[in-house]
Amino acid sequence: MLPSVNTLELIGVKRDGGEVPADALTDFVLAYARGEVPDYQVAAFLMAGFLNGFSRAEAEALTAAMVASGRTLDLSTLSGPTVDKHSTGGVSDGTTLVVAPLAAALGMQVLKLSGRGLGHTGGTLDKLESIPGFSVERSPEDLLEQVERVGLAVAAQSGDLVPADRALYALRDATGTVASTALIASSVMSKKIAGGAGAILLDVKTGDGAFMKEAGAARELAELCVDLGRAAGRVTAALVTDMSQPLGDAVGNAIEVAEAIRVLGGDGPARLTDLSLTLTGHLAAIAKVAPGAEAGRAEAERALADGRGLERFRRFVEAQGGDPRVVDDPSLLPSAPVQLPVPAPATGWLATVACERVGLIAATLGAGRQRKDDSIDPAVGLEVNVKIGDHVERGQPVGTVHARDPEAAERAAAALAGTLGIADEQVPPPPLTLGEVRP
Amino acid sequence: MLPSVNTLELIGVKRDGGEVPADALTDFVLAYARGEVPDYQVAAFLMAGFLNGFSRAEAEALTAAMVASGRTLDLSTLSGPTVDKHSTGGVSDGTTLVVAPLAAALGMQVLKLSGRGLGHTGGTLDKLESIPGFSVERSPEDLLEQVERVGLAVAAQSGDLVPADRALYALRDATGTVASTALIASSVMSKKIAGGAGAILLDVKTGDGAFMKEAGAARELAELCVDLGRAAGRVTAALVTDMSQPLGDAVGNAIEVAEAIRVLGGDGPARLTDLSLTLTGHLAAIAKVAPGAEAGRAEAERALADGRGLERFRRFVEAQGGDPRVVDDPSLLPSAPVQLPVPAPATGWLATVACERVGLIAATLGAGRQRKDDSIDPAVGLEVNVKIGDHVERGQPVGTVHARDPEAAERAAAALAGTLGIADEQVPPPPLTLGEVRP
Repeated sequence: MLPSVNTLELIGVKRDGGEVPADALTDFVLAYARGEVPDYQVAAFLMAGFLNGFSRAEAEALTAAMVASGRTLDLSTLSGPTVDKHSTGGVSDGTTLVVAPLAAALGMQVLKLSGRGLGHTGGTLDKLESIPGFSVERSPEDLLEQVERVGLAVAAQSGDLVPADRALYALRDATGTVASTALIASSVMSKKIAGGAGAILLDVKTGDGAFMKEAGAARELAELCVDLGRAAGRVTAALVTDMSQPLGDAVGNAIEVAEAIRVLGGDGPARLTDLSLTLTGHLAAIAKVAPGAEAGRAEAERALADGRGLERFRRFVEAQGGDPRVVDDPSLLPSAPVQLPVPAPATGWLATVACERVGLIAATLGAGRQRKDDSIDPAVGLEVNVKIGDHVERGQPVGTVHARDPEAAERAAAALAGTLGIADEQVPPPPLTLGEVRP
Repeated sequence: MLPSVNTLELIGVKRDGGEVPADALTDFVLAYARGEVPDYQVAAFLMAGFLNGFSRAEAEALTAAMVASGRTLDLSTLSGPTVDKHSTGGVSDGTTLVVAPLAAALGMQVLKLSGRGLGHTGGTLDKLESIPGFSVERSPEDLLEQVERVGLAVAAQSGDLVPADRALYALRDATGTVASTALIASSVMSKKIAGGAGAILLDVKTGDGAFMKEAGAARELAELCVDLGRAAGRVTAALVTDMSQPLGDAVGNAIEVAEAIRVLGGDGPARLTDLSLTLTGHLAAIAKVAPGAEAGRAEAERALADGRGLERFRRFVEAQGGDPRVVDDPSLLPSAPVQLPVPAPATGWLATVACERVGLIAATLGAGRQRKDDSIDPAVGLEVNVKIGDHVERGQPVGTVHARDPEAAERAAAALAGTLGIADEQVPPPPLTLGEVRP
């Protein structure tokens, strides 16, 4: 450990509700990343901070230290404005698959380092890997070349990026200290900052299917993320968006890719399409390729309507070794042997969806992971074809289970029906965007 | 780990301010002692409990689990009432060396498993080992035989007693979670309960030289300890006593043994003698060899006056391999080559003593340990011959440094003079006993 870090003293400051000086916190995190501070001391520090909170200055120092713990990508050799977009995780949240090609079509350059799904949320890498041949393991040189040529690239975050964040996240996961706004924000932003983009847009989800169940907490996280991005010299903005129900219809991997292709073809679910356009518009605004988010959205609508987005997606799939014919023939994507319709359990108006539960049912089918090293089944998943506010008749098909065998399909169908809260009176659809934090 | 323990859930309960069910807490501690729960999860739990507190029921479960984690001593084969006395640690706190032989002289049986000094506090084992030949490593059979024959025995706590407490204490020490009343009480009481005595007396110190600087916190600790002893079926009582200045005059090892011999000979410092008699009286009361603490104290005074206490001490030293002639000739104890008088730094009344600092100065001379594996020098130490309320003249000798070399002696003498706060007006001596928790 560096001589300037007195670990016990630093734990004591946080335990007693004080503020740890930035340089001491930086030294502490870097020493931990080098293996010079034992896990148990960091665990005590994290719990003290979880309960007593972290100041904005502490969150900045944590973020900077995590960035400094590893390599950072240098995108300065690229010609265009570089952007990154990050969702805090949701159910049927395939926006990246739509937004990245639309942004590329609008002249932005998107190098997205993404993660895998865990628990009830899906991951962009898992979805893309359901495309035959698609590879997310690329060298930095290949990624830069692809971004310059195609406008977008998506890859797995390599081990030498933010190693301190990896170590801290694993420890938080094992010590009940994940759900801290400052720790979440610094974890998210350290990855984005190390990823090198000049402009960063956060999509902070809120509602039952999000990690932040309360809109107030989501807003707080969004504001902190924007502050941390700004402190690192990046143009950063955030939207707080609804995750009280699945965003699209599909919850899975191949079926979410197929759905994204439908959105890019102008034929996707309304809310997923709407949010994808809004996010692209905001990206265009912070990347300064449009005078504002409204104008940016109008550009995105045009790129969707004239097929430029879909064309970018096709070139992107091909550049990463995937079969580009899936764009025209989604039957080339893996499909599950059993497709079981799910009937509405009652007549009335859909009022609530146990959204996190929907994600977990899909994971149980094999579409997601309970643990990091679980393998997934790209073909399986769920579709929910109704949204809050829709009228349904008892027995009417409202969804489909895509399963490996009939028993799993029956269980999932029964469980899925149980996630739908049907009321006697009509409920208005929840707004899609709940807040915005400007750069 | 036992299937019934869900570690993350248990951490979450404590983190969110709830109460962990007793059986889950017991399983958790026992699993930790078996090496089945990683340190970092326990560290997070300890910090959560440190900040959110532990209920009485949780402290009981912690105590019971620590007792159950190892061997317990069975004193049922002994003939007399068995007692134990424990001080939470202080400076010049040689009461055990006086109380144990007096209690034996009154017909009680004392098997004391003791610890070593750490930081500014002395340890009974270190003091006794300054007697030539004295051994604290004894088999359980030898200890029981000695207690039956002599009335008292003192030994090092063996590794198979309360192993969970050892592991937890080491972890607390490294994670800033030592100073929790419930954790301190369960640590203290688990050792006492495993030690097997039927009656337990706690001497909870308060003031600058104690771990509990505030009397209110000491009282709280005393009450919790008594509750925990009672819950385990032991007759338990506690006194809260003053540690705003060294209790006796001597702070060291051989010099504290010599002082204890003077007390047993009726010629010791007043406060050390007074508290030793009071503690013996309370022990006699809870062991039911006297109708009450007052009557017990009167018995203790007689045992002191007629030399029975000193005689027990002599037999005790001999039984543990020590040279019993030290009782009549303290010059047989190790002595330091340099003895330097310490003059009063001013004229006036002694108003305050930086008591913890006095202990640390003695430790710096070599009488104590900064770290657990430091070795100590039995001969060195300090004497402070004035008490709060005494009048002193500038330059008058008020203490003596016993050191290995003149340089160390000079440094310690200057530092010791700096611990004495001398006022222009007389200050009343602080009361010796500040509170009592009845069984």
